[in-house]
Amino acid sequence: MSFKLTSKEQRTGEFTVRKKTITTPFFMPVATKATGKSITSDDYKDLGGGVRANAIICNALLLSFKPGSEIIRDMGGIHEFMNFDGVIFTDCGGFQSSRNFFLRRTTKALWFKNPYNNETVRLDPKTIMRIQHEIGSDVAMVLDDMAPYGASFELAKEAMETTHRWAEESLLAHKELELKNKTGQKVFGIIQGNFFDELRIESAKFITSLPFDGFAIGGVAIGETTKEMIQAVKTVLPYLPEDKPRYVMGVGKPEDITALTKIGVDCFDSVYPTMSARHGTMLTKQGRIYIDKAKHQKSKEPIEKGCTCKTCRNYTKAYISHLCKVKDPSGYRLRSIHNLHFMMNHLKL
Amino acid sequence: MSFKLTSKEQRTGEFTVRKKTITTPFFMPVATKATGKSITSDDYKDLGGGVRANAIICNALLLSFKPGSEIIRDMGGIHEFMNFDGVIFTDCGGFQSSRNFFLRRTTKALWFKNPYNNETVRLDPKTIMRIQHEIGSDVAMVLDDMAPYGASFELAKEAMETTHRWAEESLLAHKELELKNKTGQKVFGIIQGNFFDELRIESAKFITSLPFDGFAIGGVAIGETTKEMIQAVKTVLPYLPEDKPRYVMGVGKPEDITALTKIGVDCFDSVYPTMSARHGTMLTKQGRIYIDKAKHQKSKEPIEKGCTCKTCRNYTKAYISHLCKVKDPSGYRLRSIHNLHFMMNHLKL
Repeated sequence: MSFKLTSKEQRTGEFTVRKKTITTPFFMPVATKATGKSITSDDYKDLGGGVRANAIICNALLLSFKPGSEIIRDMGGIHEFMNFDGVIFTDCGGFQSSRNFFLRRTTKALWFKNPYNNETVRLDPKTIMRIQHEIGSDVAMVLDDMAPYGASFELAKEAMETTHRWAEESLLAHKELELKNKTGQKVFGIIQGNFFDELRIESAKFITSLPFDGFAIGGVAIGETTKEMIQAVKTVLPYLPEDKPRYVMGVGKPEDITALTKIGVDCFDSVYPTMSARHGTMLTKQGRIYIDKAKHQKSKEPIEKGCTCKTCRNYTKAYISHLCKVKDPSGYRLRSIHNLHFMMNHLKL
Repeated sequence: MSFKLTSKEQRTGEFTVRKKTITTPFFMPVATKATGKSITSDDYKDLGGGVRANAIICNALLLSFKPGSEIIRDMGGIHEFMNFDGVIFTDCGGFQSSRNFFLRRTTKALWFKNPYNNETVRLDPKTIMRIQHEIGSDVAMVLDDMAPYGASFELAKEAMETTHRWAEESLLAHKELELKNKTGQKVFGIIQGNFFDELRIESAKFITSLPFDGFAIGGVAIGETTKEMIQAVKTVLPYLPEDKPRYVMGVGKPEDITALTKIGVDCFDSVYPTMSARHGTMLTKQGRIYIDKAKHQKSKEPIEKGCTCKTCRNYTKAYISHLCKVKDPSGYRLRSIHNLHFMMNHLKL
């Protein structure tokens, strides 16, 4: 069993993959291209004060563009490649269709333009599962399709139906690869349905009927209100098995995570802590601080008093503010470290 | 006595300022704006394997633009501001006249445009010494004037004569500030004279006639050949007192430093290790490696086998190469750490 509940009331548990056990709920920093925009594994493994990231998520599609999944495989897999000893998820799919390198979709595949060499890339379930297998992540996500926020019922239904077909094809491809190579990689299904309760329920029923190792709720955090996001999750949760991890994709604001862990979500990922850090929003127990405001330029205080992160133990708000004003990349790194450290502590309920 | 020779044959020594003692010869990484382009004090103080930078140099003019010398003073000085416990030099002067924010020179001052607010800034000896005093560096450099490489004898002589007047004025300003505040800050004179032996000797005689704490050779590493640079230094050295530190400004290639320490230079600074790192040139005992070359993209080896730097102990050439190909700032940081670590070891003769 790869998932064990340690408390049913608070829904805390242990998720084990390839002999690595991490406690749930957990938050995954996003290392899209095997790096978190100035953050590498030395920081993930030591954010200060004994706090570290136990799991991160990389993007299989982007890594297939560069350096290429074969190179990562030849380097010994993604853990060796980026020297990260924690759990690594890879995502692939549908949400990328909002990016500027997305070309088009059919019911069979998604098409992208590789921004590094302008080649057209066809992504179908079999291809992306092979890529994730080569990358060697601990948990692969199925290919899914997604309608944008505000989409019509028909469009949402169509994307959901594609998602369901691709879930079956992804699962099959994954099982074949595992049968052959026995790497211990797990695979999670993704529930879609946009913001239509009827579709969310249909999708939850269908996806949970397949033997996945965990279940993700995708197609949220795409522009909807917090209320709508939580409603979509609430609609789905009763249909998810208790004994499998539940992952809400792309949700990352601390208050949203608090709300979702309370109703029984186990796993999160989001660029929110690092992206907001780069833009000057620092997360603290007392709320958000906007570090680029004039008043912080002369502050000898750390971002958060008592914080044990590598940034707060070493630098003042004045210095952190200065670094970004002179556009030094170290400023983005130090801010990201603080926000990631905050998130890791935030998840220790 | 702030400088003590521990060996006259190899010219090794100890330089002490404000109770901090560092061994000579030493190399200073350049932290122009109180940061080394992705490198901050946590890296300067720990480059890996117990190696650290004992001294760095910041730029007083640039820091006066942002955050402003008063802010640094109010924050407790540059050491507190950037949390660096080693020796900090500040430079100010002449070589900045090659920058695009330089406006014009007279015999009284240099004029610059502050790139952050477009204000015109007048820099005379008294002003820059006050700025360096406010910043609180351990060693302040005098304001100097410099002719470009290839300048005529007349132009070089004019710049030298301005340098000499400014040296006297800088020294006077420094003494007045120290008399008033007793901070223990030291001040170094700068010898100019371009590539004319006659001027270099005249400048060396004049500058060493003034009671500076150390003597710098400026106006080198500005486009001349290595041979010309070494010739300029050789011309000057016999005129420098044995019992004061000798600093060649702006020289940073390992082989040049080797040549100059052999003839009795004690102190160096250069952007070379970090700038070349950002552009993919990695320094190793076996020579330079160009990390962006295709062959390194699939290498599981560190940049340099046996190297104890934080980069080599954690990451492969393949990963380092990848980070810069996807333009992640962490790549520049990790490369810079290696080259700085190399330089620190290189100076341990």
